[in-house]
Amino acid sequence: MSDLGTVAVGQSGGPTAVINASLAGVIETARAAGSQVLGLRYGIQGALNDDVIDLTNVDTDALADTASAALGSIRYKVQPAEYDRIVYAFQERGIKTFIYIGGNDSMDTADQLARVAVQRGLPLQVLGVPKTIDNDLPFTDHCPGYPSAARYVAMVVRDVGLDARAMRRVYFLEIMGRHAGWLAAASRLARDEDGAAPHLIMLPEHDWDEDRFISGVDHALKLFGHCIVAVAEGFELPEGSANLGIVDAFGHVRLGGIGRHLAEFTQQRLGLSSTPNSDILGYIQRAASFARSSIDVAEARQAGREAVTAAQAGKSGYMVTLQRRSSAPYSINYGLQPLDTIANVTRALDDHFIVRDRYDVADAFMGYIAPIAGPLVKPYRLY
Amino acid sequence: MSDLGTVAVGQSGGPTAVINASLAGVIETARAAGSQVLGLRYGIQGALNDDVIDLTNVDTDALADTASAALGSIRYKVQPAEYDRIVYAFQERGIKTFIYIGGNDSMDTADQLARVAVQRGLPLQVLGVPKTIDNDLPFTDHCPGYPSAARYVAMVVRDVGLDARAMRRVYFLEIMGRHAGWLAAASRLARDEDGAAPHLIMLPEHDWDEDRFISGVDHALKLFGHCIVAVAEGFELPEGSANLGIVDAFGHVRLGGIGRHLAEFTQQRLGLSSTPNSDILGYIQRAASFARSSIDVAEARQAGREAVTAAQAGKSGYMVTLQRRSSAPYSINYGLQPLDTIANVTRALDDHFIVRDRYDVADAFMGYIAPIAGPLVKPYRLY
Repeated sequence: MSDLGTVAVGQSGGPTAVINASLAGVIETARAAGSQVLGLRYGIQGALNDDVIDLTNVDTDALADTASAALGSIRYKVQPAEYDRIVYAFQERGIKTFIYIGGNDSMDTADQLARVAVQRGLPLQVLGVPKTIDNDLPFTDHCPGYPSAARYVAMVVRDVGLDARAMRRVYFLEIMGRHAGWLAAASRLARDEDGAAPHLIMLPEHDWDEDRFISGVDHALKLFGHCIVAVAEGFELPEGSANLGIVDAFGHVRLGGIGRHLAEFTQQRLGLSSTPNSDILGYIQRAASFARSSIDVAEARQAGREAVTAAQAGKSGYMVTLQRRSSAPYSINYGLQPLDTIANVTRALDDHFIVRDRYDVADAFMGYIAPIAGPLVKPYRLY
Repeated sequence: MSDLGTVAVGQSGGPTAVINASLAGVIETARAAGSQVLGLRYGIQGALNDDVIDLTNVDTDALADTASAALGSIRYKVQPAEYDRIVYAFQERGIKTFIYIGGNDSMDTADQLARVAVQRGLPLQVLGVPKTIDNDLPFTDHCPGYPSAARYVAMVVRDVGLDARAMRRVYFLEIMGRHAGWLAAASRLARDEDGAAPHLIMLPEHDWDEDRFISGVDHALKLFGHCIVAVAEGFELPEGSANLGIVDAFGHVRLGGIGRHLAEFTQQRLGLSSTPNSDILGYIQRAASFARSSIDVAEARQAGREAVTAAQAGKSGYMVTLQRRSSAPYSINYGLQPLDTIANVTRALDDHFIVRDRYDVADAFMGYIAPIAGPLVKPYRLY
């Protein structure tokens, strides 16, 4: 068994509904091993500022039940000179294990820290725990955080679908996903019977085809009297992605508006008397504690435990992964993947999950998503 | 006991999460009285088109558990000549009781039908069941549908509040409410401790005061490191326009955009490096089955039962009301209010619920809203 020393843990990037469950898993495994656990406030910034919280005695059950990043989080690109500062700061505090819970950029940070520690001959083991609602990390069946966000999307689409059905409306719902359609695809879970919403699912992986789009909306309207379109914010028109005209502090263009744009286009092309309604689902997608998937919560927690267990086994420079053994009954194994193979790689929606001759996702995707998002209540219909 | 004859029932206006519970209450009481129950499809349009569904044997428990209007709904202003058509159509079908579940306009329709029936000497009793997430009907403590929508708003504000806290952000959430601030006020339920979101609550009943606004945001940022603003879509700026920047290409004025506008104003005035995030909560506010208040479901169902019971007692031309007897422990009585006193009257947020020297609602409002919206899970915080 490797000496964990003091265990430091941080949360990074956009929060999710289960990132605290991973934190709880790290804490409980580390303290069972007799280690002190220090939480970095606001991710790696806490290491640079020596801003930490002693987590050794926190109530991990209550923590795991709370959404969002309880330590505070940050998007911060560590500067080359800062890696040395961090590893030596860890050394001074007796920290021999660092667990970073985050997405792509955070896995890169973790990878660099692991390398610098080796170069400096310091006893520091670094492990990553995956976290992202975007589900775009490679080498893992899915990322903790995604199933809960997917579940929220599905619950909303089902309910606004019933609303639009009652009012015989066309409605556009814009869902997070800049490059990958994982979350928008999850709206498919809402379709509990033929003709139920969503009628079109438009992914960043789909091309724009005007006729395919309009005939899809028209078909749903004629057959079912209403039409719900679930569209990823990153769906691109020939002129590019719709955006709000806001560039954030990191130079990323803030997406938003594709739903409204398609609503106006639909009105024109179908000669509707008013612009169909459109909503942008927004930040609650990544925060909704009330929509958490119980499997996601359990897996996020276990992923945190696995990271500490890997450190105990002397591993460093790996991210915990989830490997699906079976979908029915659902079961997974946990694995480890070298961090340098993960950093800066984005996983698009698997090709066999995408239907291309209309705007939809394939039945095969349901086998993937349904077990991890959990069951939805079936609505009762009078007609 | 009055002869109910066949009982017709319709749902009208924007759906809610509990409007089907009211429908279930109508059905079960009517069939217990031995009546056939006919559901009008798409509200009063179903009467004009003789488009009805026999509801006598539906599963009322399953129906009550499903959000949105299961019969279909509509916003339709009945033309003067159509009232006769409707009452004679009811006559032909043996319908002696009509229950209309809806808001302000629907109560007006119900009132007119009751009067026309009397004028024509037809045996038709008409009763209204209140329904609206806006909570703007007079003479009732609250409207079925509002507590569940309020609960959804509170749940979202709590979770996005934790998210913004973790990321140290300013965030604007735009909540439904054109003339009355009932729903935006409900965000106050999320504030489980001092410093928790929402930090500002901006109601249509509030005036615009630039300094009060900016100092409120600045204060929250300095004290708590983040700021959540819950703003009603109907909050008005001096320009008198609450749809700023969101008049669409076709000239349709739709509310939406006050949050974004305030975000941009905040950036300018506080010199922030980027525009704060803003979301519009959207249609899911009135549809979210997963956020239903159990008290709201039970009351909506009972209100449906009370309407039929009133008809059995020979009443016509009334809307069922909820009269609060006590908030702790919470209990209500049901009452009846003449329809003509309700139609076209809008109830603003009670004056004593509004704080005016800052953007907030009063503690007194918590005594009103907490018992009907139901308890929220308290988050666990590390700092």
